[in-house]
Amino acid sequence: MNRVAILGPGLLGGSLALALRERTGAEIAVWGRRAEAVAEVAESGFADLASVDVREVVEGADMVVLCTPIGVMPALAGEIAPALASTALVTDVGSVKSPVVKELQRIFTGNARFIGSHPMAGSERAGWSAARANLFDGSVCIVTPDEHCAASDVSRLSEFWKLVGCEVRYLSPDEHDEIVALVSHLPHLIAAGLVEMIETRNPAAFDFCGPGFRDTTRVASGPSAMWAEILQSNRTAVRKSAEAMIEKLREIVTLLDCDSAAAETPMNDFLTRAKARRDRLRLPS
Amino acid sequence: MNRVAILGPGLLGGSLALALRERTGAEIAVWGRRAEAVAEVAESGFADLASVDVREVVEGADMVVLCTPIGVMPALAGEIAPALASTALVTDVGSVKSPVVKELQRIFTGNARFIGSHPMAGSERAGWSAARANLFDGSVCIVTPDEHCAASDVSRLSEFWKLVGCEVRYLSPDEHDEIVALVSHLPHLIAAGLVEMIETRNPAAFDFCGPGFRDTTRVASGPSAMWAEILQSNRTAVRKSAEAMIEKLREIVTLLDCDSAAAETPMNDFLTRAKARRDRLRLPS
Repeated sequence: MNRVAILGPGLLGGSLALALRERTGAEIAVWGRRAEAVAEVAESGFADLASVDVREVVEGADMVVLCTPIGVMPALAGEIAPALASTALVTDVGSVKSPVVKELQRIFTGNARFIGSHPMAGSERAGWSAARANLFDGSVCIVTPDEHCAASDVSRLSEFWKLVGCEVRYLSPDEHDEIVALVSHLPHLIAAGLVEMIETRNPAAFDFCGPGFRDTTRVASGPSAMWAEILQSNRTAVRKSAEAMIEKLREIVTLLDCDSAAAETPMNDFLTRAKARRDRLRLPS
Repeated sequence: MNRVAILGPGLLGGSLALALRERTGAEIAVWGRRAEAVAEVAESGFADLASVDVREVVEGADMVVLCTPIGVMPALAGEIAPALASTALVTDVGSVKSPVVKELQRIFTGNARFIGSHPMAGSERAGWSAARANLFDGSVCIVTPDEHCAASDVSRLSEFWKLVGCEVRYLSPDEHDEIVALVSHLPHLIAAGLVEMIETRNPAAFDFCGPGFRDTTRVASGPSAMWAEILQSNRTAVRKSAEAMIEKLREIVTLLDCDSAAAETPMNDFLTRAKARRDRLRLPS
């Protein structure tokens, strides 16, 4: 890997630049849409080139990473495709894969190789200033190749993510979207919904938030426009998981009606099962 | 304050002992039901007396704090009431107030003064070994006096909580229960419900948990029996808040059906409102 182009100077793009700078000798070129964002990148000193000219940024790159919101990716892909070497490997970091991968694969065919990625790292903070070199350390990166992808490209991409600290797993784009709807997209909706439900019913309750509420709602402070796009792009899987959650809540409510003095109640059984399951999870530290 | 009796050597009782040891010269006596737990307290050196004999522990105490699960409190209160000085102030740290306060007030009337408390501190960890002196620092302690409580006792209790690091607020027991159902009890049910829903639908998703899932479900790792008791004791308010949440989720699902290419979608509006609201909250650090 000689030259990596990072398109989008946000939290993920910035953290990628920092990690690559720290762990490789590759040249790093960063594209941003806004001149101020590009100036911030240039000042940080973590890129060899920072520019608003995307063709200049991808020129000669053997690895290109789309780190923009997913809605911007198709237009950006169309712009860079003719400028890429046919051996260049392109990936993205979008949180929805099936619709994105389909469209980008179509655009890059004949110009370069494309395989989708989803590094499951991040925070509720956004922007280059929130970036850190260890953001990806210990996180899972889901790579979503399909039958059109060459095995050598899949392994090149996997090595790239391992280099910045990820553990790589493989899923089809559809499997990916169903799984992240459950462990990421629905939890986001729930966190935001909980905040708004309390705001409507009894906003005085917000004066009494403990560490539990802080953590259960943290993701609701993430960038709204980006999340709206993610949730809408993955609407089928998100709707299915939200409906399953509504059903589960209905079931749990019926567990409240039992004698609180009994040692073994259905509520206790339920909480014990959930605790045991969660305690067994391998979670990022 | 000369002598504080802490009944129950768990996370809250232990942290209280540590904070008092660090910040006051008061004698600290700790009661535990199990001999092994009492031995652990004695070995830690943070108590002047550790015993399984609750009468011995409360003898001469001017402040008594019930740090046991709420289901145990009435029997324990009945046992200690005759042994207390009439000027002794008793409080508890239970997460449900209305039923607990009513029963304990009845038991202590004529023997000592009782006012309920709920320090909103804690973690998913449990036991004396998880205790820390700064657990209460910056947390909110809700004190729930009623018309029977003397103002001087309320102020004595408030000073006690401030001493260990809490910011004190006042609510009636009923207001308390409605508010914690929203910001604590329902979030707990949701976290546990989310884990179980995923376990049922697609357990393979658990291999792809990021930091968001870790945080949104953290509370589900809390002690199950204690939480079952809390949720059942506050069932009316918890049921009401769960039903409001189901309604909110139904409403959110309808927001998924809009054009993801549009900049201003109802989903984006909703997430923007929730983010703005959460970003304004004063949360424990």
